[in-house]
Amino acid sequence: MRDVVLLSLCLLCVFAFISATRYEANWKSIDSRPLPSWFDEAKIGIFIHWGVFSVPATYESPWFWYWWKTKTPLFVKFMKDNYPPGFTYADFAPHFQATFYDPDQWADIFEAAGARYIVLVTKHHEGFTLWPSKHSWNWNAGDVGPKRDLLGDLAKAVRKKKDMRFGVYHSLFEFYNPEFLQDQANHFKTQNFVWRKTMPELFELVNNYQPDVIWSDGHWMAPDTYWNSTKFLAWLYNDSPVKDTVVVNDRWGVGTDCHHGGYWNCKDGYNPGKLLPHKWENAMTLDHKCWGTRREIMAGDIYTLHEIVTELAQTVSCGGNLLMNVPPNSDGRILPMFEEILRQFGAWMKVNGEAIYASKPWHTQNDTITKDVW
Amino acid sequence: MRDVVLLSLCLLCVFAFISATRYEANWKSIDSRPLPSWFDEAKIGIFIHWGVFSVPATYESPWFWYWWKTKTPLFVKFMKDNYPPGFTYADFAPHFQATFYDPDQWADIFEAAGARYIVLVTKHHEGFTLWPSKHSWNWNAGDVGPKRDLLGDLAKAVRKKKDMRFGVYHSLFEFYNPEFLQDQANHFKTQNFVWRKTMPELFELVNNYQPDVIWSDGHWMAPDTYWNSTKFLAWLYNDSPVKDTVVVNDRWGVGTDCHHGGYWNCKDGYNPGKLLPHKWENAMTLDHKCWGTRREIMAGDIYTLHEIVTELAQTVSCGGNLLMNVPPNSDGRILPMFEEILRQFGAWMKVNGEAIYASKPWHTQNDTITKDVW
Amino acid sequence: MRDVVLLSLCLLCVFAFISATRYEANWKSIDSRPLPSWFDEAKIGIFIHWGVFSVPATYESPWFWYWWKTKTPLFVKFMKDNYPPGFTYADFAPHFQATFYDPDQWADIFEAAGARYIVLVTKHHEGFTLWPSKHSWNWNAGDVGPKRDLLGDLAKAVRKKKDMRFGVYHSLFEFYNPEFLQDQANHFKTQNFVWRKTMPELFELVNNYQPDVIWSDGHWMAPDTYWNSTKFLAWLYNDSPVKDTVVVNDRWGVGTDCHHGGYWNCKDGYNPGKLLPHKWENAMTLDHKCWGTRREIMAGDIYTLHEIVTELAQTVSCGGNLLMNVPPNSDGRILPMFEEILRQFGAWMKVNGEAIYASKPWHTQNDTITKDVW
Amino acid sequence: MRDVVLLSLCLLCVFAFISATRYEANWKSIDSRPLPSWFDEAKIGIFIHWGVFSVPATYESPWFWYWWKTKTPLFVKFMKDNYPPGFTYADFAPHFQATFYDPDQWADIFEAAGARYIVLVTKHHEGFTLWPSKHSWNWNAGDVGPKRDLLGDLAKAVRKKKDMRFGVYHSLFEFYNPEFLQDQANHFKTQNFVWRKTMPELFELVNNYQPDVIWSDGHWMAPDTYWNSTKFLAWLYNDSPVKDTVVVNDRWGVGTDCHHGGYWNCKDGYNPGKLLPHKWENAMTLDHKCWGTRREIMAGDIYTLHEIVTELAQTVSCGGNLLMNVPPNSDGRILPMFEEILRQFGAWMKVNGEAIYASKPWHTQNDTITKDVW
Repeated sequence: MRDVVLLSLCLLCVFAFISATRYEANWKSIDSRPLPSWFDEAKIGIFIHWGVFSVPATYESPWFWYWWKTKTPLFVKFMKDNYPPGFTYADFAPHFQATFYDPDQWADIFEAAGARYIVLVTKHHEGFTLWPSKHSWNWNAGDVGPKRDLLGDLAKAVRKKKDMRFGVYHSLFEFYNPEFLQDQANHFKTQNFVWRKTMPELFELVNNYQPDVIWSDGHWMAPDTYWNSTKFLAWLYNDSPVKDTVVVNDRWGVGTDCHHGGYWNCKDGYNPGKLLPHKWENAMTLDHKCWGTRREIMAGDIYTLHEIVTELAQTVSCGGNLLMNVPPNSDGRILPMFEEILRQFGAWMKVNGEAIYASKPWHTQNDTITKDVW
Repeated sequence: MRDVVLLSLCLLCVFAFISATRYEANWKSIDSRPLPSWFDEAKIGIFIHWGVFSVPATYESPWFWYWWKTKTPLFVKFMKDNYPPGFTYADFAPHFQATFYDPDQWADIFEAAGARYIVLVTKHHEGFTLWPSKHSWNWNAGDVGPKRDLLGDLAKAVRKKKDMRFGVYHSLFEFYNPEFLQDQANHFKTQNFVWRKTMPELFELVNNYQPDVIWSDGHWMAPDTYWNSTKFLAWLYNDSPVKDTVVVNDRWGVGTDCHHGGYWNCKDGYNPGKLLPHKWENAMTLDHKCWGTRREIMAGDIYTLHEIVTELAQTVSCGGNLLMNVPPNSDGRILPMFEEILRQFGAWMKVNGEAIYASKPWHTQNDTITKDVW
Repeated sequence: MRDVVLLSLCLLCVFAFISATRYEANWKSIDSRPLPSWFDEAKIGIFIHWGVFSVPATYESPWFWYWWKTKTPLFVKFMKDNYPPGFTYADFAPHFQATFYDPDQWADIFEAAGARYIVLVTKHHEGFTLWPSKHSWNWNAGDVGPKRDLLGDLAKAVRKKKDMRFGVYHSLFEFYNPEFLQDQANHFKTQNFVWRKTMPELFELVNNYQPDVIWSDGHWMAPDTYWNSTKFLAWLYNDSPVKDTVVVNDRWGVGTDCHHGGYWNCKDGYNPGKLLPHKWENAMTLDHKCWGTRREIMAGDIYTLHEIVTELAQTVSCGGNLLMNVPPNSDGRILPMFEEILRQFGAWMKVNGEAIYASKPWHTQNDTITKDVW
Repeated sequence: MRDVVLLSLCLLCVFAFISATRYEANWKSIDSRPLPSWFDEAKIGIFIHWGVFSVPATYESPWFWYWWKTKTPLFVKFMKDNYPPGFTYADFAPHFQATFYDPDQWADIFEAAGARYIVLVTKHHEGFTLWPSKHSWNWNAGDVGPKRDLLGDLAKAVRKKKDMRFGVYHSLFEFYNPEFLQDQANHFKTQNFVWRKTMPELFELVNNYQPDVIWSDGHWMAPDTYWNSTKFLAWLYNDSPVKDTVVVNDRWGVGTDCHHGGYWNCKDGYNPGKLLPHKWENAMTLDHKCWGTRREIMAGDIYTLHEIVTELAQTVSCGGNLLMNVPPNSDGRILPMFEEILRQFGAWMKVNGEAIYASKPWHTQNDTITKDVW
């Protein structure tokens, strides 16, 4: 009898110990996890917006579907002028061919730019997955369009590089997925979409590709309880194959941005201009006007070296990382102008990098007398 | 007070009666349901095989995908000769246009043929739904291809006709649906596919289109317990909007054919040549060689009037219904040759119909002395 | 020396004889040529309307371009409903694929129909040549669409058959050829189109394919002097490789039909109902409503056996040949319904053919008492 | 009588005078024409290679057809990997859509670059005309592809600019035009191609668009006598609507380059490095590797500002003009990288232009001591 009591005590003890090191499915616990140090040291990342939206490749491309379906005149006219009646968004997918996609070349460019991590849009709000997902049948890059694991191939290429980590952007919500729309109509009292699509996809992403970043988005449509966010993050931090290295952002439900999760993105292009008490990231796009490729882009729409360096200085001095977005074409090419600016930036970094990578922000972020000196 | 007691007694009574007539989710109970009388009286139905497979429109069209993926040389060669590398089955879907689809014209032809019910293939093993299903996103006729509710439009046209009923063919299994493949890999111990795809689709079909026939197929891949068949049928018979009129066949799981469900189909083209103790249906196709449209079809491949009438006589005399399959083209047209043979058959029925419709089989089914007299 | 003189005399003699049998480039001389006997004996021919117009495959297909360009509402609507803005007629051509074209199978069917000659539309008013013409660059079946010599392949298949001859339909004019339009604007005082297109094509056809029939059309737009008709025919009758066997019709310029050339077609579907003093041909189409394939065709639009036999009887008894038009699809298939009616007709001919082939019309063409007996 | 003699004398006199000022169809006379002064003063031009070859948009794009047809492995593989069997060069044309073509924007960019003249490829060796030519039926931008007068629209846009002139590149020969091939097979003893295609096109270009430059090419295939060059130039200089302003280059037949015609191009990218006794032009391309657009282009393939300025200095100091080639995409866009380099160059010209425009070369072209100073 005494033995039993002792054993019980021991087990309690072990349990208590394990409990102490395991994250629980609540924000307090999740938020308590220290950020893996690689992220703060990396400072510079590359964001890649690519998808079916790269086919129409015009105004607001990742949101093209939305603006078109909501009958925004510019988009309706574009379709009427160029496509047959009855053409749907799904009809763009077979034209997403990625014929000239060369992931090693991409990795070379990103390396030359001095980037230490990559975040690929693996599924934007359109719902099309850039990997052959089992949970997105006939609406993924293996079944339709490229007929290729775009994600897997880039992950491999990036990981060949020293000091470069691979991350994934993933949209929780999908514009027109009928299961999401049904949950929404049910005021998010049902979670069919989450259990049938979002969660299985996230598990697939993590288990098959071991990303170092999960850059969540599309969170604002519903509370984190609907999205099952804390439970997923608890698993990610406790039991997933990337539990020790993975970094996530803060977009996990209405109001979580700038409050919960991993590092903070707050809003797009967030650049607070002051030191923040929490690690953050400035996700901005090198085309001033769009996240996805636009055929109507002009040279003047693209960040100059001066603009990027300014952005970097502001960001890093205030404790942020800089995540610069590059939008490839549907045929898999990065416009030479983006390549050029990335290489120029990389050359600048070669000279000034020591002051950037692994720097810690100083107490004063800019020179209050001389404007534009950070 | 006495009234209340009486009323309570009455209600109890009614409840007991209703309870007594409810079907339970087991074959004994399901099989005990009397077949709605309209079916035996109808005698003649039209089967319609239509889908993405109507685009390649060649050998074995509804099974084209399967033969191609399993590398059958004829199919591999056909693709190599006519399509670019990397072309997938999903790439056929945008070419399924149904431009010339005129459901009223179809209904006219079927009426002229003397048909009393129609069975449309609403989803074959390829998984593409001919209605805009919420459970087959981007793989249905609303999102891709026809951009139209092919099923709803035909249902309306058919129901305008006096004495014609509308039914749906539905395949339980899908060749390459990853959720089905996963369940299969799990030896059908999981039912994700059934709960995410098959059941929701069947409920959608029944609730939105009120079919008079559910012609189930694809059952042979797994036991009826996997498919949830008896539970579905109990709901269909007890509580569905078509509970009083609907008729189903016998394909609900391994070994159910020729044993359980509603009327019997047994195998394709089943024609036993003897009186059966159970209502059955001879589902055959007017193209001797294929259920779907084939561009290589020749006149000699199509049933002659003599052949059809013989088939009808054998079938009806033995207690069966005749379900004649017609394969429309991907542009929505029924070949004139099929129209012609249906009209010829209808003309013959005008003269001989009285002896066919609502006939009861005689104890002797054919003349043992004179061959070919039934 | 005497020998030389004699030889010279002989040669002169021969020359004089040959000269005497040469046709001159005027209608009197051209018309004087006796019709090669095979044509009158053949009695039954098959006409084949095939071309880019088989792609839209709708109302009035060979004239589709014309009705569309002249803004006929039905055609404008069809294009607006089904094609993107800016789609041109030329854009149909890549879709003319002839994937399932099997010329031997065609020849089998025509043989089974009892046909003794074939007339293939090798270039209709649209100007697209079914052979890889040097004079129709990028607007011929070798460069665009089928990528195949459709004409050459059929010629070979037809010539494998005993007793079957091969002829070509050729349109002199082309709807929208700019050189024709310019000549027309010049009131046909210039002949650039004739010298650059019509004549080179006709020479190419005759020299490369040795047709037994030249079925001319599109003549009504300009006088025969513009078309260079008598000169061409004089060459054809005197010096071409088919001078002894070739047969032509009567469509060689404004007003030549029913007057000049070889046998008479007069107008489309000409069936005078009386004995003519000149060999003629009844060119009719088995689809009552169209010469080209129409996707909207219905069984009732197609000639019945009774109708064909009636047409044949009327035609042959009055000294005509019957040229029955069959319209293949753009994928190279002949609809089973056309095959069927041709085979039925052939079966009838097997029984009654002796009375048809090589018959000479009797002095009385029909029974004045019993209608419908010829 | 005396009057008649006088009148005759007068007429003779006038005739003699006119003769004196008219150019004759021989090189001596043609070469004697003084170059209109605008050309030497212009110094900087923009060359634009655009056509059906912009659709495959890969290695050697304007010569893509040639390398493919001659079975160069790289090109054969590219087609095999990406297009269906039987795909022809003509099949590219419908994909040349020019959807985003904005000629005013092009003109803005060229003006910003400091260019004083534009030379558009209106027909390269592929034979496809960028204007709706009457002599290139169904193989021109009006009938197929853009469905637009690409040439006319650019001419208008360019002419809105002060000080900018509009010229046309035109290839005499066409790779696979059957009439050219026939003339070639006849050892250029026939001139059918010249009279049916080349000359009519050149007249059409001059009469309809009044170009200020005719930049001839494809001359090396045959002698100038075959091409009818001196006669055409005599007409151009004597009687054409542009006789006073037009400038031509030196590519008018085998061996004419660097010897006859107007200014000299000699070979592509000609940059002699010494003062020439005759006005010349350095036609070079801003993509080091190709004249047409290539999807595989990388930033490093494009001239830097330093390289262009060096090229300009060498060229102008030696009496040449600089014609910089820009290759638009098939959708009508100029890559931002080309726009950028042109704008940078224009900014440099704003500062240094005075020394360039209308400069006359000094007796010494470079500093023999300091390399790279011109």
